[in-house]
Amino acid sequence: MTVPHIKHDVEVVLVGDELLRGERRDAHLPYIARACARHGVRVHAAHTVGDDVAKIAEAVRSRLPHTRALVVTGGLGPTDDDTTREGVAEALDAVLEFHEDEWRRIEAFFATRGRTATEANRRQAHFPRGAEIIVNERGTASGFCAAVGDTLVFVLPGPPGELQPMVESFVLARLESLFARPRLRVETFRTIGVGESQLGEAVGADAWRVDAYSISWLPNVAGVDVVLTQKPGADAAQLDVEAARLQARLEEVLGTKLYERGERALAQVAGDLLKARGETLAAAESLTGGTIGRLVTETAGSSEYFRAGVVAYSNESKVDLLGVRGETIEQYGAVSEEACTEMAHGIRRRAKATYGIATTGIAGPGGATPHKPVGLTFIGVAWEGGSQVRRVIYPGDRGAIRDRAAHGALWLLYDHLRRRG
Amino acid sequence: MTVPHIKHDVEVVLVGDELLRGERRDAHLPYIARACARHGVRVHAAHTVGDDVAKIAEAVRSRLPHTRALVVTGGLGPTDDDTTREGVAEALDAVLEFHEDEWRRIEAFFATRGRTATEANRRQAHFPRGAEIIVNERGTASGFCAAVGDTLVFVLPGPPGELQPMVESFVLARLESLFARPRLRVETFRTIGVGESQLGEAVGADAWRVDAYSISWLPNVAGVDVVLTQKPGADAAQLDVEAARLQARLEEVLGTKLYERGERALAQVAGDLLKARGETLAAAESLTGGTIGRLVTETAGSSEYFRAGVVAYSNESKVDLLGVRGETIEQYGAVSEEACTEMAHGIRRRAKATYGIATTGIAGPGGATPHKPVGLTFIGVAWEGGSQVRRVIYPGDRGAIRDRAAHGALWLLYDHLRRRG
Repeated sequence: MTVPHIKHDVEVVLVGDELLRGERRDAHLPYIARACARHGVRVHAAHTVGDDVAKIAEAVRSRLPHTRALVVTGGLGPTDDDTTREGVAEALDAVLEFHEDEWRRIEAFFATRGRTATEANRRQAHFPRGAEIIVNERGTASGFCAAVGDTLVFVLPGPPGELQPMVESFVLARLESLFARPRLRVETFRTIGVGESQLGEAVGADAWRVDAYSISWLPNVAGVDVVLTQKPGADAAQLDVEAARLQARLEEVLGTKLYERGERALAQVAGDLLKARGETLAAAESLTGGTIGRLVTETAGSSEYFRAGVVAYSNESKVDLLGVRGETIEQYGAVSEEACTEMAHGIRRRAKATYGIATTGIAGPGGATPHKPVGLTFIGVAWEGGSQVRRVIYPGDRGAIRDRAAHGALWLLYDHLRRRG
Repeated sequence: MTVPHIKHDVEVVLVGDELLRGERRDAHLPYIARACARHGVRVHAAHTVGDDVAKIAEAVRSRLPHTRALVVTGGLGPTDDDTTREGVAEALDAVLEFHEDEWRRIEAFFATRGRTATEANRRQAHFPRGAEIIVNERGTASGFCAAVGDTLVFVLPGPPGELQPMVESFVLARLESLFARPRLRVETFRTIGVGESQLGEAVGADAWRVDAYSISWLPNVAGVDVVLTQKPGADAAQLDVEAARLQARLEEVLGTKLYERGERALAQVAGDLLKARGETLAAAESLTGGTIGRLVTETAGSSEYFRAGVVAYSNESKVDLLGVRGETIEQYGAVSEEACTEMAHGIRRRAKATYGIATTGIAGPGGATPHKPVGLTFIGVAWEGGSQVRRVIYPGDRGAIRDRAAHGALWLLYDHLRRRG
């Protein structure tokens, strides 16, 4: 009796010596896995191998019998250590053929940038016989797709900015028609200022009990995201009810620390509120050094509400560029509630914005005093006629303290906007 | 005749459904790979599998014949979806035994935190028969090490703060005595403004031919890093000679576009030059929105030379905060050589810095005009009595354009500092 062999949906092969030497942290698996999950398609395993024709060929060949789709990433560049093209061709038992069209595209790609394609780039116009080219609109390394029995092999270049559009425009469409799965609902609740275990405890075991979703808790620099992923076959009405129930409970326990149901970042949530009110923002940053400006302006169209920022890293620049009084710094220090308040008001006035937000603190590792430890930060928001400043001690290293302080100040603004109604 | 079967040094099995749903980005492989590389030990492959006893058992069992050491991470927690313990025990054909000592440690761990160990935690005191416990000083999930023939299997908990000390204190010592390898030399040459294929071609095939190192090219947002990793057994004198020869060739071809031999970021390299000269910097950012400030102040101690930054996102703020003339913006637009020059001089004067750097451009996706495409950027550096501005069209999406523009402006400063000698 033969046991029917059930193939996995998707497996991924990540190619790159640099991944195995720890020089690069893979970002493709999370991206591909999320894209698949949205389409109800499961990634069952991933394999990381080095830039070696034989190893790539072996990884691909050994997985073909086990999976309906195999996504191979990286190693399509023009240099000698880019060997994925040859490795996959070997696994497929296919010769590499030169594609005149693709070579012309590569030449044109360089030409529009005032450069010339090199001999090395010619390799990038070679594809296994019978494979379909997946055109890379953003680079020279086009990918390809080949069918082996009932398994589809997708081969994609390593740069995320090139791989991701190719996944969106080509791979997902093929996976959709291959599996014809309904899309799964994903609900994300974004929180800030509460740790993972605190969050679990505060919300209570009963509230976390849902049947229609699986739950994961994803801590990040800004806080914790609670992600509900629909279980296959769950009932639509139940999905609505359970998500709404959990949201109500999170709001009850967290208040404005639950800042988003969806995918928007905190800076965008606050920005959208400002835009809706026709109000504007400016930021005065000391220890965050430009992080708030960077976060706010990540959103296209933020120029509608973000007027300006000042990174006032020195005491002198706090006085000169923000109008903080010299005596305030002398008396209380630059890391103080008083200085933070004056910074927030100063930037608000100078940039003619509705709100000013400010950060001042000790990012470390140096700069601490007995009364002012590393991580001590004042975050503040000011508006015409008022201000609010909080003293916080952020844990973590320099990078984490800076990121947390920037998000803290943005949250303070968000909280103020919500409370004002 | 039997072909001798050469086993790999190390393979890694990463366990976790969340990795395959894209909810968490793995950080263990980079960490373990780097730690191994420092000790001359190679990680040959990594495998990511879900929280499933059979899959974990299969992954471990199938790799045992191929590797001298197997590191398994994640899934040692107390909850039902933590199944690594059972999976590995199955692969080892070993029963799980209760360890009284470990249970007492877990109880004590909770007691000192004013909490009580639960029944679920009892599972964490079970280990495969014959395995050696790797005590977790920072959590309840201790790991274990088992020998299968000539292969060592290490099993470690998922939280990085727990795993990493266990790697440092236990795993690396075992790997050192298993392989007895000398540490390997790694040389990094960091470049900017040249693509991977251009770099290969410009430097020339002959110059890339080295015997003592393997070479990888790692493109990143700022440029391309060329990383030389010593081949085992390479001669020390040859290592020096080949690294020096390649450096000389890179300098010859790239000039200041080779900005670092080592690990420093561009902002730090430029900052260290400023510090050595007792000079200071200020930045006026439009499309980069704070990115330059953020990059410069990532370096602890940057307050010595970074005086201030202004994020002038609106035309009005360019006039008010930087002193750009209204007629300049009217006549040439905010995205122009003229505006960029005035921004760089403006921030320099207002922040009383030796140098002002500036960016203005179109980050997209909106905002383009027939004569000003998305990506068009002016980057500039100004000093007392002079300035230099460049017009560049950066490729990529909004994020990439912003990052490239920020690095472009920092490089312009670096280039100026180097040319001035």
